[in-house]
Amino acid sequence: MSETLQNLGRRRLLAGSAGAVAATALSGQAFAQAAQAAQGGSAAAGAAKAKPALPEYVAWKDADSLIVHTANTIETKRHALGDGVITPAEQLFVRNNIAPPDPSILNDRDAWQVKIEGVKNARTLTLGELKNMGIETVAAVLQCSGNGRGYFKHNPSGTQWEVGAAGCVMWAGVPIKQLVEALGGIDEGMNYMTGTGGEVIPEGIDPNTIMVERSVPAEAMEDALLAWEMNGMPLTLAHGGPLRLVVPGYTGVNNVKYIKRLAFTKEQSQARIQQTSYRMAPLDGKPSPDQPSAWEMPVKSWVISPNENNQVKEGNVMIRGVAFGGVNPVSRVDVSTDGGKSWVRAQFVGPDLGKYAWRQFALPVKLQAGEYDIVSRAVDVEGNQQPEERLENFRGYLNSSWRDHALKLKVVA
Amino acid sequence: MSETLQNLGRRRLLAGSAGAVAATALSGQAFAQAAQAAQGGSAAAGAAKAKPALPEYVAWKDADSLIVHTANTIETKRHALGDGVITPAEQLFVRNNIAPPDPSILNDRDAWQVKIEGVKNARTLTLGELKNMGIETVAAVLQCSGNGRGYFKHNPSGTQWEVGAAGCVMWAGVPIKQLVEALGGIDEGMNYMTGTGGEVIPEGIDPNTIMVERSVPAEAMEDALLAWEMNGMPLTLAHGGPLRLVVPGYTGVNNVKYIKRLAFTKEQSQARIQQTSYRMAPLDGKPSPDQPSAWEMPVKSWVISPNENNQVKEGNVMIRGVAFGGVNPVSRVDVSTDGGKSWVRAQFVGPDLGKYAWRQFALPVKLQAGEYDIVSRAVDVEGNQQPEERLENFRGYLNSSWRDHALKLKVVA
Repeated sequence: MSETLQNLGRRRLLAGSAGAVAATALSGQAFAQAAQAAQGGSAAAGAAKAKPALPEYVAWKDADSLIVHTANTIETKRHALGDGVITPAEQLFVRNNIAPPDPSILNDRDAWQVKIEGVKNARTLTLGELKNMGIETVAAVLQCSGNGRGYFKHNPSGTQWEVGAAGCVMWAGVPIKQLVEALGGIDEGMNYMTGTGGEVIPEGIDPNTIMVERSVPAEAMEDALLAWEMNGMPLTLAHGGPLRLVVPGYTGVNNVKYIKRLAFTKEQSQARIQQTSYRMAPLDGKPSPDQPSAWEMPVKSWVISPNENNQVKEGNVMIRGVAFGGVNPVSRVDVSTDGGKSWVRAQFVGPDLGKYAWRQFALPVKLQAGEYDIVSRAVDVEGNQQPEERLENFRGYLNSSWRDHALKLKVVA
Repeated sequence: MSETLQNLGRRRLLAGSAGAVAATALSGQAFAQAAQAAQGGSAAAGAAKAKPALPEYVAWKDADSLIVHTANTIETKRHALGDGVITPAEQLFVRNNIAPPDPSILNDRDAWQVKIEGVKNARTLTLGELKNMGIETVAAVLQCSGNGRGYFKHNPSGTQWEVGAAGCVMWAGVPIKQLVEALGGIDEGMNYMTGTGGEVIPEGIDPNTIMVERSVPAEAMEDALLAWEMNGMPLTLAHGGPLRLVVPGYTGVNNVKYIKRLAFTKEQSQARIQQTSYRMAPLDGKPSPDQPSAWEMPVKSWVISPNENNQVKEGNVMIRGVAFGGVNPVSRVDVSTDGGKSWVRAQFVGPDLGKYAWRQFALPVKLQAGEYDIVSRAVDVEGNQQPEERLENFRGYLNSSWRDHALKLKVVA
């Protein structure tokens, strides 16, 4: 046992093994069933000791903090987070659009290559070269476009995330602005920054139907990184190692993992993931490229404590939560214990890690026995207020409704 | 294997097992020998696959990032740190003055009790009660008083730390100021804040000779916490869980682990660890209570990269390091590649986490083949400059000499 435990640190750095491929090869449905069984779905299994089944490539994560939807979609439990501002890697959600590449891509990280195109002096650089070109660290919220989908009423397809497809992490890498300057600047007329992931495309499939290639407005490069570290450690396979495009303030899908090409382009990518997926389509219409793409994140907050599954006794109760403004700093959070009838301003907790990070907030209250509908509402520095209602859309993206994220709490005498 | 890996997250939270007691019961000397053997100290052992032997209670740490001196003294390797500002728990050094208590103290964290004395309404509080009284998060450098002892020339006794008995972590807990206010304020004439650790004192030993009880000036309570979290996770046994006194800006020993009593007192503790240990005694004299205690940390910095053990090729090289001012924010770092003959100002990297945190810095340089003596020198906002020479003292505390911390680098063509 001791030897196995001691190897864990190294295993996390390598972040995978042959087993990872097998695990992620399970279909989503098959995996969810297996996971449910392992979680004690069968009474005979003896629920007391049952553990969620983490896929091998994320076996280093904290199973108790996570909800396994499928091998590629793993959510952080609402009440798992502490007050450290930065979400520990062990607790961070996972969302892969397709199975990650073979873990062997981490064997020689510095040898990883990325093509830079749409700049005056286009060239291929190794990660080893990038490390000596520039370095910056950015704390940023990473949130899946579909976080909160579970609260939509029209049953949009996709993972039924509630609050936990989000975390706040520290990325370190080379600023893209600096990289672009070193390569002579962006070519004329380029409107988008397009990143292409290094996932393996199965034979016989039109790459555009499956490849992870996303375009964001070229201006988003301003604070973007090619990142090789998350939370001070080399990037794991689960989170896009060895190299990931990080576009602070933009939803998760725009932060392309295993990036092998970064191009400044006239048009958006022709990949389906850009053209018709991640579009804010109306409930009664089809997704199309003329609809808004899931890019910048709206202002949002939710309560993470107390835990409504525990017995909460009347008296002093600390309400805690997280709030962020997407591309703007969040400036204020109000909390209501009566479903939005009355509000009290909460205090921010901990250091401000910059405009792309979330703030944690707290409000000490005295609660009598009874039932409470606890909600939080954030405002950013530009006055954008978190809305009461979600913006309805076909696939259930960008849910920032404060009402949807309510926590129903029963306090006992 | 899968089951074992999945349990790891939970194991880290529990942070120990029966094995921990056995491991920590080894004498320092015996453990060091065992650890050395496991690290490949014997040529016959086959060095290629040898791993440092982590004691069971810290088996969840990243062995590759650590140097095991003894079961209770474990150092972070100079080049292990990334640019995440916050040191991952897996990489953080460990220093226990005596063996930690039994891991069973973590079984019911909220039931942990701490006596608060020297206040108007002295009382005993549980951790569960503290959690509902107030919450704050502070990023702070945690550094052993003896960090850098390995560079002293008079062979002071104690662990021969080089740079790695230090890290920057996020603590969360209740502000002591708030706690004291809730208890009616500090009694008249109390000059010190004294914390008593919950370690078990063996029978037949005068407690004062072994107990961990430290006093700091009462003013240090201003930003101090009773903390139950480190880096967003419940405090592990190795780092003082379930509850630790955190005195930002003060050396590690003042941050009393497993705190069971927090008292405002007229006098300093009578424990040996306060009276004669951790005193800045002259080389030719005996430690005594009238000498300065190892309290506030002086301004300090060191280079963490490049790694002189790897082959560094001529061309672009990124010099990276960490700098902090103890109780003052650090304002500037200069770097020299010629042992202090010429200096260039470095850039800070990443968000500023407040005055008690360290800043990471970087300086891109072009180096020809040759030998380099790379040093860094920090200045705090009050103009205190990191000194060239260490302050000589009997036990080798508070080494902040920039020359001592030089990195000797050979660059090849």
